[in-house]
Amino acid sequence: MIIVTNRGPARFTRAPDGSFSAQRGAGGIVGVLGPNLSAEKDERIQWVATAMTDDDCAAVAAGKAELPGVDLELLVLEPRVHRLHYDVISNATLWFLHHGLFDLPRRPRFDHRFRDAWDAYVTVNRAFVERIADSASPGDVALVHDYQLSLVPGLLTKTRPDLRIVHFTHTPFCGPNSIRVLPDDVAHDIARSMVQVPCGFHTSRWASAFEASMTAVLGHDHRPTRVFVSPFAADAGDVLETRDSTATRDAIVELENHLGDRKLILRSDRIDPSKNIVRGFLAFDLLLREHPEWRERVVFVAMLNPSRESLPEYQAYRQEVEQAAAMVNERWGRADWTPVELDLRDDFPRAVAGYARYDVLLVNSLKDGLNLVAKEGPIVNQRHGVVCLSPEAGAFDELREAVLAVHPYDVDQNARALHDALSMPSDVRRERATRLRELASARTPAMWLGDLVDAAGPRR
Amino acid sequence: MIIVTNRGPARFTRAPDGSFSAQRGAGGIVGVLGPNLSAEKDERIQWVATAMTDDDCAAVAAGKAELPGVDLELLVLEPRVHRLHYDVISNATLWFLHHGLFDLPRRPRFDHRFRDAWDAYVTVNRAFVERIADSASPGDVALVHDYQLSLVPGLLTKTRPDLRIVHFTHTPFCGPNSIRVLPDDVAHDIARSMVQVPCGFHTSRWASAFEASMTAVLGHDHRPTRVFVSPFAADAGDVLETRDSTATRDAIVELENHLGDRKLILRSDRIDPSKNIVRGFLAFDLLLREHPEWRERVVFVAMLNPSRESLPEYQAYRQEVEQAAAMVNERWGRADWTPVELDLRDDFPRAVAGYARYDVLLVNSLKDGLNLVAKEGPIVNQRHGVVCLSPEAGAFDELREAVLAVHPYDVDQNARALHDALSMPSDVRRERATRLRELASARTPAMWLGDLVDAAGPRR
Repeated sequence: MIIVTNRGPARFTRAPDGSFSAQRGAGGIVGVLGPNLSAEKDERIQWVATAMTDDDCAAVAAGKAELPGVDLELLVLEPRVHRLHYDVISNATLWFLHHGLFDLPRRPRFDHRFRDAWDAYVTVNRAFVERIADSASPGDVALVHDYQLSLVPGLLTKTRPDLRIVHFTHTPFCGPNSIRVLPDDVAHDIARSMVQVPCGFHTSRWASAFEASMTAVLGHDHRPTRVFVSPFAADAGDVLETRDSTATRDAIVELENHLGDRKLILRSDRIDPSKNIVRGFLAFDLLLREHPEWRERVVFVAMLNPSRESLPEYQAYRQEVEQAAAMVNERWGRADWTPVELDLRDDFPRAVAGYARYDVLLVNSLKDGLNLVAKEGPIVNQRHGVVCLSPEAGAFDELREAVLAVHPYDVDQNARALHDALSMPSDVRRERATRLRELASARTPAMWLGDLVDAAGPRR
Repeated sequence: MIIVTNRGPARFTRAPDGSFSAQRGAGGIVGVLGPNLSAEKDERIQWVATAMTDDDCAAVAAGKAELPGVDLELLVLEPRVHRLHYDVISNATLWFLHHGLFDLPRRPRFDHRFRDAWDAYVTVNRAFVERIADSASPGDVALVHDYQLSLVPGLLTKTRPDLRIVHFTHTPFCGPNSIRVLPDDVAHDIARSMVQVPCGFHTSRWASAFEASMTAVLGHDHRPTRVFVSPFAADAGDVLETRDSTATRDAIVELENHLGDRKLILRSDRIDPSKNIVRGFLAFDLLLREHPEWRERVVFVAMLNPSRESLPEYQAYRQEVEQAAAMVNERWGRADWTPVELDLRDDFPRAVAGYARYDVLLVNSLKDGLNLVAKEGPIVNQRHGVVCLSPEAGAFDELREAVLAVHPYDVDQNARALHDALSMPSDVRRERATRLRELASARTPAMWLGDLVDAAGPRR
């Protein structure tokens, strides 16, 4: 089996003595797949990805980009090509497209610079295909992931028709009106590639949008090979193990001491416009205005990881997030109470401590492929906390009966939902939290991986 | 028959002596319906609309809001209610929604202020319903127009079940992903109202989006009563008459003297983000960069009507438009050649002179219900001009075989299309222009009106 992702399962760091150590990536496919792979003893696992940092490249050059249990192949790309593929096309174009983040009167503008970047995108997809073609055994299953690699299915099918290729999308997929935003030939090339292989999504909503988009671009004669839905799963064992680690237990004690008997509203996200962080603060602001009884009795801790800061859009959004938090604190804060606490450290044990302690977990994404926090949080939580979840997050489909829906644009409704969550009687909270934990852990990563392998079909 | 529109067919002006004169509105439904109505002698025509200006209100107060051939009823609204209905809900929310203009990470934010504005929107829709209910005869046909009056169908059906009500949308209609941006109850109220009556659209694309949106909001049990497609028509006789008027003939001579043997690229639009004016200038900039042979040989005249300037979004967009034009002029202009000429006068004869003289007409809208300029231009044009038309304009469906498609986001492709249009051999231009004129005048306003009346069904 070959796993193909843009970002690999680990990041390498060079120590002063020239040796390399590997840090397992946190979150997303990498966090979930990583620990489960080594368990599959009976099969050789290859993983093809991009060397993301200078140290990754150095580890490759030194022959030290190695992980136990995985044949890791990191592609070293020319820095300019890497930047154009990753920043300009993947993050600033396709991520924005699939999450509906464009301010369309102004962006995108497809011009010569875009064309250069698109050439780089094609180059990187080709480089992946060459590497896979070189190292795959006949009939191997190749699991290709996400929008950074949308041309791999088409190119690889041509180069290695013997492989059983599956593409899985972890983001939403844009609908037929949105895909028309792309230049015609670009939309066409992506679509022609994707329809060659079985394509998977976290919910039927993204799967339907994908099918409608393919029809919009290619007409009715080029139907996708197969479209399937398989929601990604939290690794309950792994997050519970993290919760019970010394680092997390220390963080929980620290958080308890800090909060005392105050209630905790928590969010944990990359700083990304799709996460809708600013409106979350506005809803909290409205809660404090409308319900003076919560002043000084609730703290909103936002654990936010700065992300993609080479893009101006992300720099601007981070500023807006910080300003919104400051606005709430200036308006309502007291000497001994900071209503919104921003925590920008990237510290997984600390995040899991937050999961254990929250009274309300807010996930109000504008659009979100799945949102794993909405599953991991309830598994770990120890206070019968309530999850306020946006219906625009893929996980909503599985969790809807035990969460409170928050409308991502309706700040008023969001404030009411926060109040309802904070005020919920403890027996109702307990019942819902129990049900939510069941729903959130109903599936395992192995089941998800099994669905992908099944979609690849039997060896021909 | 009762015509119901937010803006009436005429604007009134008070002279210093206290008398009132009526100016027929230009463009849109008002421009086309106005002259055709008086022709329908056999039927009493009522027209219910809003008094838009202080002078309109004064004319109503003086009993002088009158037009020949029409029973005009102008509603005088409380200024605050009028502003909230028109600016906040109709223009800044529903117009933005249906044209996909929101910068979603930032806008909209539905909060208390939105709720106040929505109450005003309901109030205005109710006021329309009361007025119609008071004055309609049993079994009358009521033709209700556009997003400003989306609650009228539902309310009026309840109040006056005897009326034969039709709703026609002149804008695009947003798809199921976008309508979820509205607060749940607002989307629900709009949908519950619209599905009560036959609903018409300019193209099957907006009609399908409407049906999918209704299903997304109401589920499968509340299907629209009837959905029909009837593209609005240019009034060929009226625009040709304008072309042959003294005012227009003078404007044509002036334009000819000004341009000499230079080619003319023309656009004629309200200054609205949906019109995509900035990217049009960027495409022209790219044309001049890539094709030095056009420098000094082409002028881009942009006839732009400032619009909705009480909204900050429109003020900002106007600035961006002016800056983009200035940028092109600074980069390429010479002492005796200004590449981009902005003409902000609202002067219909002058616009028609532009239609007569253009070599290329650019209509590159992001989204456009129909775009009547794309039909009126070819009817009037005297130089076998080429129309570069966005597939996102409703008129594209009817005109596609005789226009050049311009992708609204692909500036590169737009520049190539402008070059192709300017370079097209004269025999090809002639053939296409002839065909285009046929297509653009294939339908008449009376046919369109007939479709609406047919949709209303027979007297019960």
